[in-house]
Amino acid sequence: MPSKIHVGILGATGIVGQRFIQMLEHHPWFEVTWLAASDRSEGKEYGVATRWRLKTAIPPPVATMRVSPATPDGAPSVIFAALDASIAAELEPRFADAGCAVITNSSALRMAKDVPLVIPEVNPDHMKLIECQSWRRKSGGFVVTNPNCSAIGLVLALAPLHQRFQIETVMAVTMQAVSGAGYPGVASLDILGNVIPYIPKEEEKMEEETRKLLGRLNGAGIAPATFTMSAQCNRVAVEDGHTESVSVKFKNKAEAAEILNAWAEFRSIPQERNLPSAPEVPVRYLDSSDRPQPRFDVDFGRGMTTTVGRLRPCGVLDWKFTVLSHNTIRGAAGAALLNAELLKAEGYLG
Amino acid sequence: MPSKIHVGILGATGIVGQRFIQMLEHHPWFEVTWLAASDRSEGKEYGVATRWRLKTAIPPPVATMRVSPATPDGAPSVIFAALDASIAAELEPRFADAGCAVITNSSALRMAKDVPLVIPEVNPDHMKLIECQSWRRKSGGFVVTNPNCSAIGLVLALAPLHQRFQIETVMAVTMQAVSGAGYPGVASLDILGNVIPYIPKEEEKMEEETRKLLGRLNGAGIAPATFTMSAQCNRVAVEDGHTESVSVKFKNKAEAAEILNAWAEFRSIPQERNLPSAPEVPVRYLDSSDRPQPRFDVDFGRGMTTTVGRLRPCGVLDWKFTVLSHNTIRGAAGAALLNAELLKAEGYLG
Amino acid sequence: MPSKIHVGILGATGIVGQRFIQMLEHHPWFEVTWLAASDRSEGKEYGVATRWRLKTAIPPPVATMRVSPATPDGAPSVIFAALDASIAAELEPRFADAGCAVITNSSALRMAKDVPLVIPEVNPDHMKLIECQSWRRKSGGFVVTNPNCSAIGLVLALAPLHQRFQIETVMAVTMQAVSGAGYPGVASLDILGNVIPYIPKEEEKMEEETRKLLGRLNGAGIAPATFTMSAQCNRVAVEDGHTESVSVKFKNKAEAAEILNAWAEFRSIPQERNLPSAPEVPVRYLDSSDRPQPRFDVDFGRGMTTTVGRLRPCGVLDWKFTVLSHNTIRGAAGAALLNAELLKAEGYLG
Amino acid sequence: MPSKIHVGILGATGIVGQRFIQMLEHHPWFEVTWLAASDRSEGKEYGVATRWRLKTAIPPPVATMRVSPATPDGAPSVIFAALDASIAAELEPRFADAGCAVITNSSALRMAKDVPLVIPEVNPDHMKLIECQSWRRKSGGFVVTNPNCSAIGLVLALAPLHQRFQIETVMAVTMQAVSGAGYPGVASLDILGNVIPYIPKEEEKMEEETRKLLGRLNGAGIAPATFTMSAQCNRVAVEDGHTESVSVKFKNKAEAAEILNAWAEFRSIPQERNLPSAPEVPVRYLDSSDRPQPRFDVDFGRGMTTTVGRLRPCGVLDWKFTVLSHNTIRGAAGAALLNAELLKAEGYLG
Repeated sequence: MPSKIHVGILGATGIVGQRFIQMLEHHPWFEVTWLAASDRSEGKEYGVATRWRLKTAIPPPVATMRVSPATPDGAPSVIFAALDASIAAELEPRFADAGCAVITNSSALRMAKDVPLVIPEVNPDHMKLIECQSWRRKSGGFVVTNPNCSAIGLVLALAPLHQRFQIETVMAVTMQAVSGAGYPGVASLDILGNVIPYIPKEEEKMEEETRKLLGRLNGAGIAPATFTMSAQCNRVAVEDGHTESVSVKFKNKAEAAEILNAWAEFRSIPQERNLPSAPEVPVRYLDSSDRPQPRFDVDFGRGMTTTVGRLRPCGVLDWKFTVLSHNTIRGAAGAALLNAELLKAEGYLG
Repeated sequence: MPSKIHVGILGATGIVGQRFIQMLEHHPWFEVTWLAASDRSEGKEYGVATRWRLKTAIPPPVATMRVSPATPDGAPSVIFAALDASIAAELEPRFADAGCAVITNSSALRMAKDVPLVIPEVNPDHMKLIECQSWRRKSGGFVVTNPNCSAIGLVLALAPLHQRFQIETVMAVTMQAVSGAGYPGVASLDILGNVIPYIPKEEEKMEEETRKLLGRLNGAGIAPATFTMSAQCNRVAVEDGHTESVSVKFKNKAEAAEILNAWAEFRSIPQERNLPSAPEVPVRYLDSSDRPQPRFDVDFGRGMTTTVGRLRPCGVLDWKFTVLSHNTIRGAAGAALLNAELLKAEGYLG
Repeated sequence: MPSKIHVGILGATGIVGQRFIQMLEHHPWFEVTWLAASDRSEGKEYGVATRWRLKTAIPPPVATMRVSPATPDGAPSVIFAALDASIAAELEPRFADAGCAVITNSSALRMAKDVPLVIPEVNPDHMKLIECQSWRRKSGGFVVTNPNCSAIGLVLALAPLHQRFQIETVMAVTMQAVSGAGYPGVASLDILGNVIPYIPKEEEKMEEETRKLLGRLNGAGIAPATFTMSAQCNRVAVEDGHTESVSVKFKNKAEAAEILNAWAEFRSIPQERNLPSAPEVPVRYLDSSDRPQPRFDVDFGRGMTTTVGRLRPCGVLDWKFTVLSHNTIRGAAGAALLNAELLKAEGYLG
Repeated sequence: MPSKIHVGILGATGIVGQRFIQMLEHHPWFEVTWLAASDRSEGKEYGVATRWRLKTAIPPPVATMRVSPATPDGAPSVIFAALDASIAAELEPRFADAGCAVITNSSALRMAKDVPLVIPEVNPDHMKLIECQSWRRKSGGFVVTNPNCSAIGLVLALAPLHQRFQIETVMAVTMQAVSGAGYPGVASLDILGNVIPYIPKEEEKMEEETRKLLGRLNGAGIAPATFTMSAQCNRVAVEDGHTESVSVKFKNKAEAAEILNAWAEFRSIPQERNLPSAPEVPVRYLDSSDRPQPRFDVDFGRGMTTTVGRLRPCGVLDWKFTVLSHNTIRGAAGAALLNAELLKAEGYLG
């Protein structure tokens, strides 16, 4: 058995850091050998430093691992990052500069001109932007990002439709789970019996990331998709799973059956190459009139499948439907992990 | 002190029936003297027959009132109705035929050609349709309806904008409280930690009722407003208060300040005539970036004020904003009660 | 491979019936070949007749199985039952009379003199009562029951302590999940943001079943344990998992370490015989000061392990601690299934 | 009209501080003229500094009041305090030393020998301890405390029983609302669909405070009540209202009717003197078998009445019942306010 690639986790004690650890526990290619978090945690055993909020137990080797300082010295050359944007903006370039492959869930560099923002099923070719990064030329290091948890489910549902019918307009209203805000995140007094109609910067991210993801690689940058878009983001009392009410208009006429086919037939590089974390089915349509629902459907494809339902004509645009995606798996740790698997398959991880 | 008008309640044991009783407890014009519900309840004391789900106590005279059979014999001539649509379709005409003023929250007759669907602040002139009803001519009885709980908040927010800027397109996504489904209604296993992206017939009602409410009285009928509209309706784990993410496009250009003015200045007949249940302010805009929220804002104006927030440009239509309205007060019992007060003020209740 | 034992499910469409189907999907010994439910479902495909409320999908062979009438004709000879008590009281004897082994979760016959009420780890010898049943003598059929979902977690935690220290007094206050009330069960308007301090007949069941379970087989009956006990039962807004605050007094002095040992060392017939649904560890103590918690700990041992925490001295009795148990798995379907496995291992199922 | 007494609030931005402001808005005797909070808030307008979490609006004069530094200079001579215990331990003596009457909800000094811990209906005579305080002798200042939010509802229910039947043993298991933990307090990821069986130091506080409250003034201290007691404290997903399952044993035999009478007839100084915040009925028994419930009953007596229900024999002690009390009104701000009203009525506030 060839030895696994050693990976480190930046921001290991947060909710997404925990998901990284959980998803990497039995990974065939990667092995967690290094953890870093805030200064407060440094030097402590991970099991002591973290407030573990997942149902499965902390993997024993990780539980007793010491939390390292968040600097490249001693870090492995593949880093998964789950840092707050402001810290990421400072730390991620430092790790890339030191030669690390930084595969990050943070928003800090997503919209940077030479940084790929990738969903492996949607725009794997954008990975080529890596070669434009100065870090790459200098030390071999680079940064690859995945989208916001509210954008990724939407874009997975839109991509097969955009390919066939060309999107002209998208409107999306989200009902997002509290785990999307990290831990402690949303106070219970704010969300019990409540809806919060605002998530800072979320609507802007959804709109610009969606266009970059569905845009085209164009020399040393991405020409964003040109459709118009509007997002409204709400927080609801759900633990995991972002639900979205979506309306779309296409350039080319699309019948319901054609749309259902586009989703059913959608397969891409991760499925073709059998990447370990790839869901068998990236987008799954549920026939029942009242699905998808986070409580019952969020774990399809081990949380990596986006579920869609309620396709019906829209009185303003062409079609409307509901999208559901697991926000800390497909929308965060699993997204980065699948990016890492794509990078490995493409030879970027040595 | 002149004696109060005696009123009866059809469907008195349900959630909306309970709200009628609560709101009528100290009403200056009306007094509950008759209650009817399903056969199961007939003959019992109301306090025994009902499973009271409100925070205030059952008014003592009502608690010991006997539940009457649901027939016009012995009923007072003013009837508030809160029946399931299928039962309403059968019973409401029977009461109107017998000479009763039936002021109903049921959906059964809302879209009937000669039945007014009225929000007193929005389209009080539609009450004139009463004169077209055959019941009216025969026995003096008539039926007046108020809109669905998801339509009323939206229409209150749209009406002042439609008057000034003319709506061309509306898109609305709702996050609706469980009390909107009555009692027992939504099972806890269905909604704890969940979103249900479907409410039977709700989207159709929202779309057609909105157009009728903002339409124009045209001889013996209503010419519905001609804008395009699309609604998507979701159920969330909130007790009271429907929150809606709305986007609109106008015929006439509207600046943010003009829209805020339109809401701030909106007053209508109920305010002018000082109807007892009229809120001082029908539409209230909240400046805070994360409001309105059902847990904190649903009770403005004793539940009769629609609150609005987050006005900002929409990337697809012109403007987007959030609307919140109390679904069992402004969206049901309070809606019917305000209709009754308008009818009384206009001389329809003898 | 020897063929599996055919089993039927009475009450297949309810929450516990669904759990039976889920737990039997890949069972090594049993195969579902017959389903019955209320008249309303009769003749329909199961997938159509049921409102499936679990996260995993309906097993495909079951989804298309027709729902049979609830009579012994054509039923297999091993029946899992999950009926309402009043219906169970009528149907279960009929199936036993016809020669079926009825393994039931219903409360109807639990306290009958000749009916074993069994938790396989606690009182497997009580199964011998079967031989006292008139059905057994007549047709070979019999009835075996498992305890109420609130009693089973408590008794699993108490049994190892009773063996070593002899219980003198028990006080238990429960905080029970909504799934314990079936589906639709608890209305969302009753439980959102609420506690309901009453569950009909639950406290009586807990008290008498606990004593029967920890009692001694005595000829043709059970001599109940003689300790005093008091239960208070509350419903809380939790989906799965009953949490209980327990205080106990022992005849023999017990140190904390001895109690922890008693739990840690507790193994019994199901573990020794390696019954397929037996948890490796029936009772697991969690060291963390704020555990167990239903959201994180309810699925230990695939829902068959009872978790315990917070052992500390009690100011009134001797010790107090918190118990958590999965109410629809260990507390219902899994309890019956483990009983069936014990019966099979003991040669009762042919 | 005589001018009102000027009062200040220490810890004005927290959940309890907000309740003080809300309850003092139209108070006939007191007027808020000074607010202090953490350094972070100092100098800001209160409306900007606080994250207001109540349904009613911030009283306009308070919204624009500047937050003062938390020092006695410039503070009025009557101070309501709602500080974290560690800060209170330092600040409260400083204000008392400077001559202020400090009426505090903090736990810091509750168990101090010369500090009265008072519920005005229960032990108003304990106020006399004020005269033993060195601050009192030096500057006229003093400190008066009210109990923990979990103790106060219990003690209000126990006091009338203790008077008549003498308590020998009490066991209480709480299900406490999230507002008891302040803001942001409990993370939503910790409590949605969950029970947390641990609240730091809460059980100890309940046990020792209950005994002090029901103890006897004895020269310069309190001889605590001598009954045995055990408390178990849990957090549940409820916004406001602590529910408690209680069992008691009396020295003197008590019939159910006598207990109900004891509660029904319980009136005390606050009712006799008609203190502005006193509830008409301090303890109210609800007959319905499934009450009290926080969602429906927590606001009785404007949140100042403790509701009790489900009185029934206990299999271990004598009687058991359920208690409900509003934790931020009767259990915090309202408790302190009623103490202040008692002090004013007794001539302690100048």
